Amino acid sequence: MLESHYSTAVSLESNATSNEANARSEDVLIHRIASIVTRRPPKRGEIFIGDDAAVLDSFAGQVVMSVDVCVYGVHLDEELFTLEDLGFKAVTTALSDLAAMGARPRGVVLGVVAPSGTDLDILHRGAATAATLCDTDIVGGDLTTGTGVSVAVTVVGECPGSSAVLRSGALPGDSIYVSGSLGRSAAGLRLARAGASKDDPLVVAHRHPWPRLREGWNFRLAGVHAMMDLSDGLGLDLHRLADASGVGFELDDVPVATGASLLEALSGGEDYELLFTTADEERLRERCDAQNIRQPLRIGTIVSDPLVRTWRGEALVREGWQHRL
Amino acid sequence: MLESHYSTAVSLESNATSNEANARSEDVLIHRIASIVTRRPPKRGEIFIGDDAAVLDSFAGQVVMSVDVCVYGVHLDEELFTLEDLGFKAVTTALSDLAAMGARPRGVVLGVVAPSGTDLDILHRGAATAATLCDTDIVGGDLTTGTGVSVAVTVVGECPGSSAVLRSGALPGDSIYVSGSLGRSAAGLRLARAGASKDDPLVVAHRHPWPRLREGWNFRLAGVHAMMDLSDGLGLDLHRLADASGVGFELDDVPVATGASLLEALSGGEDYELLFTTADEERLRERCDAQNIRQPLRIGTIVSDPLVRTWRGEALVREGWQHRL
Repeated sequence: MLESHYSTAVSLESNATSNEANARSEDVLIHRIASIVTRRPPKRGEIFIGDDAAVLDSFAGQVVMSVDVCVYGVHLDEELFTLEDLGFKAVTTALSDLAAMGARPRGVVLGVVAPSGTDLDILHRGAATAATLCDTDIVGGDLTTGTGVSVAVTVVGECPGSSAVLRSGALPGDSIYVSGSLGRSAAGLRLARAGASKDDPLVVAHRHPWPRLREGWNFRLAGVHAMMDLSDGLGLDLHRLADASGVGFELDDVPVATGASLLEALSGGEDYELLFTTADEERLRERCDAQNIRQPLRIGTIVSDPLVRTWRGEALVREGWQHRL
Repeated sequence: MLESHYSTAVSLESNATSNEANARSEDVLIHRIASIVTRRPPKRGEIFIGDDAAVLDSFAGQVVMSVDVCVYGVHLDEELFTLEDLGFKAVTTALSDLAAMGARPRGVVLGVVAPSGTDLDILHRGAATAATLCDTDIVGGDLTTGTGVSVAVTVVGECPGSSAVLRSGALPGDSIYVSGSLGRSAAGLRLARAGASKDDPLVVAHRHPWPRLREGWNFRLAGVHAMMDLSDGLGLDLHRLADASGVGFELDDVPVATGASLLEALSGGEDYELLFTTADEERLRERCDAQNIRQPLRIGTIVSDPLVRTWRGEALVREGWQHRL
């Protein structure tokens, strides 16, 4: 147990009394999961699954690293969504943290806990599909028996060319942007609970959130000052960015996605759009044009007084707008 | 939620109805855990906890990465051992996979699932102590509510100077070595169950296993051919090394730790000593002398025929010796 190649946990006691057949069946499971998550062979000199740890070619620039834990029934309603959705969402939401720094992913590892009898193939298929769609690889993992299904996803990435973009870099006078309209995930959950199809575009936004990796990469190279991903809703996350930067904000506009409510856009969370600030709007616009990235939406202005936190002139209460109604 | 800085999981629904007080108390928990795990400030330009992801200075050479999941009650008996032991052991056993590659650790992230009411401070204190003792840092994490306590530990490291050492590099004629005598962890568990003190040296070996990072680093620089850590017992892991290398072995000696049985040394597991092979015993001996590392123990020879797997002339059955008795 306890290796980067897939391995199942065996307690010390059961290990000491296990037999050759058990060892073989453990190896069969490991090989099956490894074949599910390995969608393309590693480059020459790299190793994904099969040794004590994954070995990757050297990284360029700063190294960026983050972990997210997704629990079935907490982060995704187990009545409405499958283990494949869980695997997919666990990977894409973790990768969103690399997008938020402007980093390029270099590898993903999964730590899975599940009761025996859980369909691990389906869960890993969802995770592998997500990694492939994001042009990265699952390079290692660990499987363990436990109560409840959880997936801990760790992602690493690199930042060649310039530093990772922090939350703390916003400056007075910066324009505030989001990479897209908000509220789709919360609206999708509402619709799913009301019986909408799993293929409804808003339900898909909740099941299969998408990390804005290409956007984050290009925003970094366009010299933006501060950036984060919107996981908890603009009404909380904009305060966090302002806190980290020691500034205030004047929010003018909340772009609401079609089919979502204003409340969902402000505090529904899980949109994984990027929130960022810049002093050079022309450079941003030009880079998005040149890279064929949808133009981000301007939503307000950073101000120097950290006590100024307004939306259309009224105080924007932390954690969302609904508390003022 | 879902950020490299410490964050607690809030379901979409509870998030949408949470209030300012909840957001504040979540921030209080995050700050407390962050202060527990941050034992030294990051270097200038690095960021540990507090942004979407950790940012680390560039790595030298190949990047090595591994994840291990430790479940309370599976990997560590919850009747006998504390949450501090769990945090400690989760980190050191994960770091052992870097030792097995000859890598130097650069960072650790924790994904913790626990029922509400769990003493998260103690668990993180154990993890932070382990990281500090191994001269590395906890640079990020995620906290989530769930049934059962589990800790997914992901470690990253670097390999300047030469490639990471794989399991697959053993060559016929190589001498086989282990970094120390075996069976202490299994003996410690046996003694703990019989009522021995938690401070008994063998019980400590089970509670607080130690990764052979300095040894692995120096064995790599002494040009060893193949290496892995002994997590499942020599009786299984030596077969795995031979499988990966396409070779056989003639095992002459099983070094049994004082207080352990031969069975515990062969198949107890969790010793986390390093198993490796080399063609240059003199270079190995000289480097260990120069670096003040205990001389490793020679236990046998690699042979070309992969079907030859013997211990003192008799077949060594995979997964241990006990099945032959």
